[in-house]
Amino acid sequence: MFEKVDHIGIAVRDLEKMVRIFRDSLGFEYNGEEEVPEQKVRTAFFPAGESKIELLQTTDPDGPIGRFIAKKGEGVHHIALSVSDIEAKIRELKEKGIEMIDEKPRYGAGGAKIAFIHPQSTGGVLIELCQH
Amino acid sequence: MFEKVDHIGIAVRDLEKMVRIFRDSLGFEYNGEEEVPEQKVRTAFFPAGESKIELLQTTDPDGPIGRFIAKKGEGVHHIALSVSDIEAKIRELKEKGIEMIDEKPRYGAGGAKIAFIHPQSTGGVLIELCQH
Repeated sequence: MFEKVDHIGIAVRDLEKMVRIFRDSLGFEYNGEEEVPEQKVRTAFFPAGESKIELLQTTDPDGPIGRFIAKKGEGVHHIALSVSDIEAKIRELKEKGIEMIDEKPRYGAGGAKIAFIHPQSTGGVLIELCQH
Repeated sequence: MFEKVDHIGIAVRDLEKMVRIFRDSLGFEYNGEEEVPEQKVRTAFFPAGESKIELLQTTDPDGPIGRFIAKKGEGVHHIALSVSDIEAKIRELKEKGIEMIDEKPRYGAGGAKIAFIHPQSTGGVLIELCQH
Protein backbone atom coordinates (compact mmCIF):
# COMPACT_ATOMS: atom_id res chain seq x y z
CA MET A 1 0.00 0.00 0.00
CA PHE A 2 1.22 3.42 -0.95
CA GLU A 3 -0.43 6.46 0.58
CA LYS A 4 0.05 8.75 -2.38
CA VAL A 5 2.35 9.83 -5.19
CA ASP A 6 4.58 12.20 -3.23
CA HIS A 7 6.30 13.67 -6.27
CA ILE A 8 7.44 13.06 -9.83
CA GLY A 9 11.11 13.92 -10.37
CA ILE A 10 12.02 15.34 -13.79
CA ALA A 11 15.65 15.78 -14.88
CA VAL A 12 16.20 19.10 -16.66
CA ARG A 13 19.24 20.84 -18.10
CA ASP A 14 18.26 24.44 -17.31
CA LEU A 15 16.27 24.85 -14.10
CA GLU A 16 15.57 28.59 -14.51
CA LYS A 17 14.20 28.12 -18.02
CA MET A 18 12.00 25.20 -16.96
CA VAL A 19 10.73 27.09 -13.88
CA ARG A 20 9.57 29.86 -16.23
CA ILE A 21 7.77 27.31 -18.45
CA PHE A 22 6.09 25.42 -15.61
CA ARG A 23 5.13 28.51 -13.60
CA ASP A 24 4.46 31.17 -16.23
CA SER A 25 3.36 29.22 -19.31
CA LEU A 26 1.80 26.02 -17.96
CA GLY A 27 0.31 27.83 -14.95
CA PHE A 28 1.61 25.66 -12.10
CA GLU A 29 1.78 26.89 -8.53
CA TYR A 30 5.44 27.32 -7.56
CA ASN A 31 6.90 26.42 -4.18
CA GLY A 32 10.45 27.62 -4.72
CA GLU A 33 13.85 26.00 -4.95
CA GLU A 34 16.00 23.87 -2.69
CA GLU A 35 19.56 22.60 -3.07
CA VAL A 36 20.17 19.00 -1.94
CA PRO A 37 23.98 18.67 -1.74
CA GLU A 38 23.80 14.94 -0.91
CA GLN A 39 22.12 14.31 -4.30
CA LYS A 40 24.15 17.01 -6.11
CA VAL A 41 21.00 18.73 -7.36
CA ARG A 42 19.06 21.94 -7.26
CA THR A 43 15.33 21.25 -7.19
CA ALA A 44 12.19 23.30 -7.83
CA PHE A 45 8.72 22.22 -6.65
CA PHE A 46 5.31 22.65 -8.22
CA PRO A 47 2.38 21.27 -6.18
CA ALA A 48 -0.59 19.60 -7.90
CA GLY A 49 -3.12 18.35 -5.36
CA GLU A 50 -1.42 16.10 -2.81
CA SER A 51 1.56 15.52 -5.17
CA LYS A 52 4.34 17.70 -6.51
CA ILE A 53 6.34 17.98 -9.71
CA GLU A 54 10.04 18.22 -8.76
CA LEU A 55 12.41 19.57 -11.41
CA LEU A 56 16.02 18.50 -10.88
CA GLN A 57 19.16 20.11 -12.27
CA THR A 58 22.52 18.59 -11.44
CA THR A 59 25.19 20.68 -9.72
CA ASP A 60 27.87 18.19 -10.86
CA PRO A 61 28.15 16.30 -14.19
CA ASP A 62 29.05 13.18 -12.16
CA GLY A 63 25.96 13.40 -9.95
CA PRO A 64 23.04 10.99 -10.55
CA ILE A 65 21.02 13.56 -12.54
CA GLY A 66 24.08 14.58 -14.56
CA ARG A 67 24.72 10.96 -15.53
CA PHE A 68 21.01 10.36 -16.27
CA ILE A 69 20.84 13.31 -18.67
CA ALA A 70 24.11 12.34 -20.40
CA LYS A 71 22.64 8.87 -21.04
CA LYS A 72 18.93 9.48 -21.66
CA GLY A 73 18.39 13.23 -22.02
CA GLU A 74 15.82 15.25 -20.14
CA GLY A 75 12.68 13.58 -18.84
CA VAL A 76 11.06 11.78 -15.92
CA HIS A 77 13.80 10.49 -13.62
CA HIS A 78 11.82 8.92 -10.77
CA ILE A 79 8.42 8.52 -9.15
CA ALA A 80 8.29 8.95 -5.37
CA LEU A 81 5.61 7.10 -3.39
CA SER A 82 4.72 7.97 0.21
CA VAL A 83 4.86 5.27 2.85
CA SER A 84 4.14 5.58 6.55
CA ASP A 85 6.99 3.30 7.69
CA ILE A 86 9.88 3.19 5.26
CA GLU A 87 11.98 0.64 7.19
CA ALA A 88 9.01 -1.79 7.27
CA LYS A 89 8.35 -1.27 3.54
CA ILE A 90 12.01 -1.94 2.68
CA ARG A 91 11.90 -5.18 4.71
CA GLU A 92 8.65 -6.24 3.02
CA LEU A 93 10.01 -5.55 -0.49
CA LYS A 94 13.25 -7.44 0.18
CA GLU A 95 11.26 -10.43 1.45
CA LYS A 96 9.40 -10.42 -1.87
CA GLY A 97 12.66 -10.48 -3.84
CA ILE A 98 12.69 -6.79 -4.81
CA GLU A 99 16.20 -5.38 -5.13
CA MET A 100 16.80 -2.09 -3.31
CA ILE A 101 19.40 0.53 -4.27
CA ASP A 102 19.16 1.78 -0.67
CA GLU A 103 18.72 -0.94 1.92
CA LYS A 104 18.69 1.76 4.59
CA PRO A 105 16.89 5.10 4.23
CA ARG A 106 18.86 8.25 3.60
CA TYR A 107 17.79 11.89 3.59
CA GLY A 108 16.32 13.78 0.63
CA ALA A 109 14.76 17.18 -0.03
CA GLY A 110 12.75 18.61 2.86
CA GLY A 111 14.43 16.20 5.30
CA ALA A 112 12.35 13.23 4.12
CA LYS A 113 13.61 9.68 4.64
CA ILE A 114 14.04 8.18 1.18
CA ALA A 115 15.12 4.89 -0.41
CA PHE A 116 15.28 3.93 -4.08
CA ILE A 117 14.10 0.59 -5.46
CA HIS A 118 16.40 -0.84 -8.12
CA PRO A 119 14.79 -0.27 -11.54
CA GLN A 120 15.74 -3.84 -12.53
CA SER A 121 12.97 -4.92 -10.15
CA THR A 122 10.33 -2.58 -11.60
CA GLY A 123 10.69 -2.91 -15.36
CA GLY A 124 13.00 0.07 -15.71
CA VAL A 125 11.04 2.64 -13.68
CA LEU A 126 13.01 4.25 -10.85
CA ILE A 127 10.74 4.33 -7.79
CA GLU A 128 11.61 6.22 -4.60
CA LEU A 129 10.02 5.36 -1.26
CA CYS A 130 9.49 8.51 0.76
CA GLN A 131 8.51 9.10 4.39
CA HIS A 132 7.93 12.65 5.62
CA MET B 1 -3.75 25.56 -11.70
CA PHE B 2 -3.90 21.80 -11.82
CA GLU B 3 -6.21 19.99 -9.40
CA LYS B 4 -4.08 16.89 -9.04
CA VAL B 5 -1.85 14.39 -10.80
CA ASP B 6 -4.53 12.17 -12.30
CA HIS B 7 -2.16 9.41 -13.37
CA ILE B 8 1.36 8.56 -14.48
CA GLY B 9 1.42 6.53 -17.70
CA ILE B 10 4.21 3.96 -18.00
CA ALA B 11 4.94 2.15 -21.28
CA VAL B 12 5.62 -1.57 -20.73
CA ARG B 13 6.33 -4.49 -23.05
CA ASP B 14 4.55 -7.21 -21.05
CA LEU B 15 1.47 -6.02 -19.18
CA GLU B 16 0.78 -9.33 -17.36
CA LYS B 17 4.35 -9.54 -16.04
CA MET B 18 4.30 -5.92 -14.88
CA VAL B 19 0.88 -6.34 -13.22
CA ARG B 20 2.34 -9.20 -11.20
CA ILE B 21 5.31 -7.03 -10.15
CA PHE B 22 3.25 -3.95 -9.24
CA ARG B 23 0.47 -5.87 -7.47
CA ASP B 24 2.23 -8.86 -5.92
CA SER B 25 5.81 -7.69 -5.33
CA LEU B 26 5.54 -3.93 -4.86
CA GLY B 27 2.21 -4.23 -3.04
CA PHE B 28 0.08 -1.80 -5.04
CA GLU B 29 -3.70 -1.90 -4.99
CA TYR B 30 -4.93 -3.09 -8.40
CA ASN B 31 -7.98 -1.70 -10.20
CA GLY B 32 -8.00 -4.00 -13.22
CA GLU B 33 -7.47 -3.61 -16.93
CA GLU B 34 -9.10 -1.65 -19.72
CA GLU B 35 -8.56 -1.66 -23.47
CA VAL B 36 -8.58 1.75 -25.18
CA PRO B 37 -8.88 0.98 -28.92
CA GLU B 38 -8.54 4.67 -29.91
CA GLN B 39 -5.05 4.72 -28.33
CA LYS B 40 -4.21 1.13 -29.39
CA VAL B 41 -3.38 0.13 -25.81
CA ARG B 42 -4.33 -2.18 -23.00
CA THR B 43 -4.00 -0.41 -19.66
CA ALA B 44 -3.84 -1.53 -16.02
CA PHE B 45 -4.47 0.84 -13.12
CA PHE B 46 -2.93 1.00 -9.64
CA PRO B 47 -4.31 3.71 -7.36
CA ALA B 48 -2.02 5.60 -4.95
CA GLY B 49 -3.94 8.26 -3.02
CA GLU B 50 -5.78 10.55 -5.43
CA SER B 51 -3.52 9.48 -8.34
CA LYS B 52 -3.03 6.27 -10.29
CA ILE B 53 -0.17 4.47 -11.97
CA GLU B 54 -1.32 3.44 -15.46
CA LEU B 55 0.67 0.71 -17.21
CA LEU B 56 0.30 0.76 -21.00
CA GLN B 57 0.98 -2.05 -23.45
CA THR B 58 0.48 -1.41 -27.13
CA THR B 59 -1.91 -3.58 -29.13
CA ASP B 60 -0.22 -2.48 -32.38
CA PRO B 61 3.50 -1.83 -33.06
CA ASP B 62 2.44 1.33 -34.93
CA GLY B 63 0.43 2.72 -32.02
CA PRO B 64 1.86 5.59 -29.92
CA ILE B 65 3.10 3.27 -27.15
CA GLY B 66 4.56 0.82 -29.67
CA ARG B 67 6.54 3.62 -31.33
CA PHE B 68 7.60 5.05 -27.95
CA ILE B 69 9.03 1.69 -26.80
CA ALA B 70 10.78 1.10 -30.13
CA LYS B 71 12.51 4.48 -29.74
CA LYS B 72 13.10 4.86 -26.00
CA GLY B 73 12.37 1.50 -24.35
CA GLU B 74 10.09 0.99 -21.36
CA GLY B 75 9.52 3.84 -18.93
CA VAL B 76 7.35 6.82 -18.06
CA HIS B 77 5.42 7.87 -21.16
CA HIS B 78 3.27 10.73 -19.86
CA ILE B 79 2.01 12.60 -16.80
CA ALA B 80 -1.71 13.37 -16.72
CA LEU B 81 -2.91 16.45 -14.81
CA SER B 82 -6.56 16.99 -13.85
CA VAL B 83 -8.27 20.18 -14.91
CA SER B 84 -11.85 21.23 -14.28
CA ASP B 85 -12.40 22.80 -17.74
CA ILE B 86 -10.19 21.31 -20.42
CA GLU B 87 -11.39 23.59 -23.25
CA ALA B 88 -10.58 26.67 -21.15
CA LYS B 89 -7.15 25.29 -20.21
CA ILE B 90 -6.31 24.54 -23.86
CA ARG B 91 -7.28 28.12 -24.80
CA GLU B 92 -5.19 29.54 -21.94
CA LEU B 93 -2.12 27.47 -22.88
CA LYS B 94 -2.36 28.41 -26.57
CA GLU B 95 -2.58 32.10 -25.62
CA LYS B 96 0.68 31.65 -23.69
CA GLY B 97 2.40 30.14 -26.73
CA ILE B 98 2.24 26.50 -25.63
CA GLU B 99 1.94 24.08 -28.55
CA MET B 100 -0.80 21.46 -28.21
CA ILE B 101 -0.81 18.03 -29.87
CA ASP B 102 -4.59 18.04 -29.42
CA GLU B 103 -6.21 21.41 -29.94
CA LYS B 104 -9.57 19.78 -29.21
CA PRO B 105 -10.14 17.19 -26.49
CA ARG B 106 -10.58 13.53 -27.39
CA TYR B 107 -11.60 10.57 -25.27
CA GLY B 108 -9.28 8.41 -23.19
CA ALA B 109 -9.59 5.58 -20.64
CA GLY B 110 -12.67 5.76 -18.45
CA GLY B 111 -14.36 8.18 -20.88
CA ALA B 112 -12.24 11.15 -19.71
CA LYS B 113 -11.73 14.12 -22.01
CA ILE B 114 -8.01 14.33 -22.71
CA ALA B 115 -5.58 16.51 -24.65
CA PHE B 116 -1.80 16.23 -24.94
CA ILE B 117 0.57 19.18 -24.74
CA HIS B 118 3.43 18.99 -27.25
CA PRO B 119 6.60 17.95 -25.39
CA GLN B 120 8.56 20.60 -27.31
CA SER B 121 6.75 23.12 -25.11
CA THR B 122 7.57 21.35 -21.82
CA GLY B 123 11.24 20.43 -22.08
CA GLY B 124 10.56 16.92 -23.40
CA VAL B 125 7.96 15.78 -20.85
CA LEU B 126 4.68 14.59 -22.38
CA ILE B 127 1.84 16.12 -20.33
CA GLU B 128 -1.79 15.10 -20.73
CA LEU B 129 -4.65 17.33 -19.61
CA CYS B 130 -7.49 15.26 -18.26
CA GLN B 131 -11.07 16.10 -17.32
CA HIS B 132 -13.28 13.42 -15.76
